[in-house]
Amino acid sequence: MNIKAPRGTQDIVPGQVEKWQFIEEKIRDLCRMYQYKEIRTPIFEQTELFLRSVGDTTDIVQKEMYTFADRGGRSITLRPEGTAPTVRSFIENKMYANINQPVKLYYLEPMFRYERPQAGRYRQFVQFGVEALGSADPAIDAEVISLAMSLYKDLGLKKLKVVINSLGDKESRQAYRNALIDHFKPQIHEFCSDCQNRLEKNPLRILDCKKDRDHQLMKSAPAIIDYLNEESRKYFEKVQQHLQALNIPIEVDPNLVRGLDYYTHTAFEIMSDAEGFGANSTLCGGGRYNGLVEEIGGPEIPGIGFALSIERLLAALEAEMIELPLNEGIDCFFVSLGDEAKDYTVRLVHTLRQAGYSAERDYLDRKVKAQFKAADRLQAKYVAILGEDELKRNIINVKNMATGDQKELALDSFVEQFKRL
Amino acid sequence: MNIKAPRGTQDIVPGQVEKWQFIEEKIRDLCRMYQYKEIRTPIFEQTELFLRSVGDTTDIVQKEMYTFADRGGRSITLRPEGTAPTVRSFIENKMYANINQPVKLYYLEPMFRYERPQAGRYRQFVQFGVEALGSADPAIDAEVISLAMSLYKDLGLKKLKVVINSLGDKESRQAYRNALIDHFKPQIHEFCSDCQNRLEKNPLRILDCKKDRDHQLMKSAPAIIDYLNEESRKYFEKVQQHLQALNIPIEVDPNLVRGLDYYTHTAFEIMSDAEGFGANSTLCGGGRYNGLVEEIGGPEIPGIGFALSIERLLAALEAEMIELPLNEGIDCFFVSLGDEAKDYTVRLVHTLRQAGYSAERDYLDRKVKAQFKAADRLQAKYVAILGEDELKRNIINVKNMATGDQKELALDSFVEQFKRL
Repeated sequence: MNIKAPRGTQDIVPGQVEKWQFIEEKIRDLCRMYQYKEIRTPIFEQTELFLRSVGDTTDIVQKEMYTFADRGGRSITLRPEGTAPTVRSFIENKMYANINQPVKLYYLEPMFRYERPQAGRYRQFVQFGVEALGSADPAIDAEVISLAMSLYKDLGLKKLKVVINSLGDKESRQAYRNALIDHFKPQIHEFCSDCQNRLEKNPLRILDCKKDRDHQLMKSAPAIIDYLNEESRKYFEKVQQHLQALNIPIEVDPNLVRGLDYYTHTAFEIMSDAEGFGANSTLCGGGRYNGLVEEIGGPEIPGIGFALSIERLLAALEAEMIELPLNEGIDCFFVSLGDEAKDYTVRLVHTLRQAGYSAERDYLDRKVKAQFKAADRLQAKYVAILGEDELKRNIINVKNMATGDQKELALDSFVEQFKRL
Repeated sequence: MNIKAPRGTQDIVPGQVEKWQFIEEKIRDLCRMYQYKEIRTPIFEQTELFLRSVGDTTDIVQKEMYTFADRGGRSITLRPEGTAPTVRSFIENKMYANINQPVKLYYLEPMFRYERPQAGRYRQFVQFGVEALGSADPAIDAEVISLAMSLYKDLGLKKLKVVINSLGDKESRQAYRNALIDHFKPQIHEFCSDCQNRLEKNPLRILDCKKDRDHQLMKSAPAIIDYLNEESRKYFEKVQQHLQALNIPIEVDPNLVRGLDYYTHTAFEIMSDAEGFGANSTLCGGGRYNGLVEEIGGPEIPGIGFALSIERLLAALEAEMIELPLNEGIDCFFVSLGDEAKDYTVRLVHTLRQAGYSAERDYLDRKVKAQFKAADRLQAKYVAILGEDELKRNIINVKNMATGDQKELALDSFVEQFKRL
């Protein structure tokens, strides 16, 4: 019997993993430039955390969480998203009292949602996200958006669209909420049962509904923009002004309301415009959540962040047919003939690696010809050939595979001479 | 109410995470030189996999696994170790048919064991492990050991000990097994109940028992070395010879028998000799498992690997009081005065980051003095000062914080000039 990877999960194996490594290194570099520091939280959290933060009316909490009891009987959940754990850790580690403010964090970790497996959707997927906590400066909203855009652009994506909206502050949001209830209430019986439930609990989510998207009341629904108070409007303008200064073109979409309850002010999505990328073109979603830290039990601290999936980023690269400039090939392959020479290459390959070169030898007792073929397949820059004759003369032949040049190097000072090649 | 990280888990936060990043980068570099390719398997697997591979008599399977049913009713387990998932993936992805052989893989991922929380022991911990599949050349046993040793040495550890043993091939192991049964059977009632269970199932594990370690039969127990057949003995000698050639001193310990059932031939541990490192000084454990691939449902393919915990590596560094050479500090901090200048730095910090520099500005509307203090705390190499006056003159003042030198740069070509500093 063969045991397979669990349904909806995937192995990332050599040949694919190099792309992941490339993207992740890019992310780490970018975060260093932008001064976001990495945080790593556990794979699972107390279930309570997500009930409180993600909200118990959401699909995530209602249908998609991997929730179970551990051996001590505690309810734990494999994290479905990264913001709540990051904010939980921010509070638990009292980072709000750090001398350096704001606290700018990033995570790059697997998330888990029990969704119906389909092309490009996995039950375990990797998210890169950032959270900037402790500042209500519109400049940091712009920074967060520009960081996500820099990642996409640096990797070569061109067909991108930034959609932005404001949900305003608490007051504005409350006014808008009431307007939505007034708007939908008279005909709410024509909507799906989910929307009927949402009407009083969270009417903003009706605008998100996929089933009722064509109902005539959707088009005529009030827009949040008309309910922003003076302060919220100014904030939104400033964010847009900063983005303009950074040459990031944006589109204001008054219907962009994020599904989660704790968002305030800026909400944004980055979408792919690439042909054939599919119906759901969102690559990255984020926004400001000035109410979340308090909601989870911390002080009143403003925050903003985004999350994006590496799987979708890879899909976007594919849709735009972008090849990442992966560095493949090794520095040196050792071909040997005879037992003594074979043994000797154990030492040579070791010393070359110690000096910082990627090196390989044969481990299958292959004939010389097959060893050369292996060297070819590994795209070796140099092939070093050691036989009994060379060993007696205390030399080794090194061939430059690009030029065909061959040189004799003394075995005693092999590494030093190799460096000079 | 505050929600905490689950018991036995930890957050790795800025200030600590830099060490992890440093070590992981070192690992990725080393694996590139040694030509081990990364593999990433899901966080959870079908429970069956571990029952079959780790073995149902082990503590891991009996007491320590995070096993639960997913929403589809399937029994899944958060992986307690990395070898079984790697081998599962090796089989599922038919890597035994790859043209490049052997297949050399590494993983660097969290593992999960429900253990009693105690100092330095976590229920989620990170393992780095390698698996070389498809070669039975003793040179690869030496390579695997030397890779682990290179990691420790490159990070600065000095107090290391490599302990090695051979469990021989199937035939040798069977002979030894019988000898152990004969040896313990007459007095097995004096041993703990676990050992009594192990006698027929897996007598080698009696030698591992912590409760009975002082029983007189332990010292007089037969040693595997005396039961190795000719081929196994030769294999063991060759491994030792290669390690000698690589200047890796070893100690043969005939009592080193690894707890898991599928090991053959080489078994090894790397321990810390550092004072005060505690009773359990094992940093890394590994060995050859020529029977495992078949056991999991694949063809008969030899393999060897090791696993080591990053948490224990960090503890060893601490015990030897080694400071990793972490690169902290940022390239430039922008201090601004006045609304217009403040806005302008949004653009400047952005362009500097685009050029590959780490840069930061104020996001808290602080006074100039407080901004300078922030720059100090972030160990800024340069501080760039922009006020209304500078803005009018289209320049910016840049101060080298190490030398105190200050220069006026033109705003229009700021990045180009900054590069030249």
